[in-house]
Amino acid sequence: MFDLMGYLAEQRAKVDAELDRRLPTAAERPARLHEAMRYSVFAGGKRLRPILCLASTEAAGGAADAALAAAAAIECLHTYTLIHDDLPAMDDDDLRRGRPTSHKVFGEANAILAGDCLLTLAFEILADTPQSGPLAAELARAAGSRGVAGGQYEDLAAEGAPPDPDRVRYIHEHKTARLIEAACRMGGICAGAGGAELRALDDYGRSAGLAFQIADDILNATATAEQLGKAAGSDAKRGKMTWVAWRGLDGARADAAELVLQAQRALDKLPGPTEPLHAIAEFIVRREA
Amino acid sequence: MFDLMGYLAEQRAKVDAELDRRLPTAAERPARLHEAMRYSVFAGGKRLRPILCLASTEAAGGAADAALAAAAAIECLHTYTLIHDDLPAMDDDDLRRGRPTSHKVFGEANAILAGDCLLTLAFEILADTPQSGPLAAELARAAGSRGVAGGQYEDLAAEGAPPDPDRVRYIHEHKTARLIEAACRMGGICAGAGGAELRALDDYGRSAGLAFQIADDILNATATAEQLGKAAGSDAKRGKMTWVAWRGLDGARADAAELVLQAQRALDKLPGPTEPLHAIAEFIVRREA
Repeated sequence: MFDLMGYLAEQRAKVDAELDRRLPTAAERPARLHEAMRYSVFAGGKRLRPILCLASTEAAGGAADAALAAAAAIECLHTYTLIHDDLPAMDDDDLRRGRPTSHKVFGEANAILAGDCLLTLAFEILADTPQSGPLAAELARAAGSRGVAGGQYEDLAAEGAPPDPDRVRYIHEHKTARLIEAACRMGGICAGAGGAELRALDDYGRSAGLAFQIADDILNATATAEQLGKAAGSDAKRGKMTWVAWRGLDGARADAAELVLQAQRALDKLPGPTEPLHAIAEFIVRREA
Repeated sequence: MFDLMGYLAEQRAKVDAELDRRLPTAAERPARLHEAMRYSVFAGGKRLRPILCLASTEAAGGAADAALAAAAAIECLHTYTLIHDDLPAMDDDDLRRGRPTSHKVFGEANAILAGDCLLTLAFEILADTPQSGPLAAELARAAGSRGVAGGQYEDLAAEGAPPDPDRVRYIHEHKTARLIEAACRMGGICAGAGGAELRALDDYGRSAGLAFQIADDILNATATAEQLGKAAGSDAKRGKMTWVAWRGLDGARADAAELVLQAQRALDKLPGPTEPLHAIAEFIVRREA
């Protein structure tokens, strides 16, 4: 029986150590800006995306350590999206992971800048790796206007509109699945994986990523604020176009379960150990926060 | 006699064509976000940084076309800094190059996202070049918390404080000179330049970049809003820590002139044609907007 919790804790410690090594400290000018960057990066995140990157490297037959820099870059990029999404002009959230959001603590200008700097740092970290070109291409495509940022745009634009299957799928695939997919592919790239392996990681990441966002929608509708560390039920209040709004709770649960199976099936084509990816796909829909 | 205006017009057309080729259009989803990116990129900028990149490639003995992608990336990055600097939470500017700023036209959330996407696109473009690693390292270091964003942080933090030579220099070197320096070095990298050439381009870029910001401070204090295409005298009104506030108009003019000479002296160590860089350094302090 694979010990997922032990695996996650171990990989998380590695990712945290790498992030600590890569992020500038408050000893360096401008101290307050570096404090803001660290405040959000070390806010108790699950490190799901970087761990998926490491696990994908192993599944593609490589050594996880070869993907540590890429994993850290992905988490920096993910943290930037959280900081900017929480801004008053965007989702206007006061709480994230049980703590005040960046703009609440450091002010709006510094929150914007801290996000900008984490986005930039992600590419600085990748520039330093042997596969700098392919990794940066992958991350930039996933993050830009055709990826996460495009999804966030559509998410805001769709507020209050009646549920539309095409639009919900676009938002979830871009805002969430795209980066998870890229994390898996980047892990494959670090292992020197070929086309077939990258496509398998891609399939896994897309399905698992979509399942993750559907699970998020379900949690937002059913969990308490205490469980989530952020406002609960906020999606419905804002008229967000969620999977639950479109398919209902039962439909969303069934879709997430089906996507987990799809993700797991994609793993058959990989040469290395896939237990972690297999278990993480299940964890994604079973988690309580 | 070198025809600078002809040179600038010619290079500008090349840069604009490359940017047009690289930027997603409104035909692609999300249309409005792509519109916002293009609105700010095609707003009539001088293209000074990308042209410095192209001219630096030639000065280092390369062909300007080898640096076109890098030049486009630099302009995308520069445009992101303008969009975010203009935001209500930052400098709160309504006009830029004679037109309403991004957040005035597209709303604050979309302006933040358009900036994020241009920053991301800069690295996507670089990932596609033969020197992707060194170019991305250069641009990321220049743009991040130890570069442009750090300078912008300090610029905001210093508002209203009494002029402090160390702080003014820090702000100007980081907020402005750092990216101009990187543009020149990136041009050198595209030409395959060695350490001595890169250092010469570095010296040129740092001095020319500082002169550029001092000239900006002088223009802000002396030109009309019509000349500038943005609010005039805004620095003094906001208690910005400018070179003029510290050294006075005459002192600032003398410093800028000295820096231009310093920049020009650095060009002696370069193997290729340096007339464009020589002339641009002078243009930087003589321009009227």
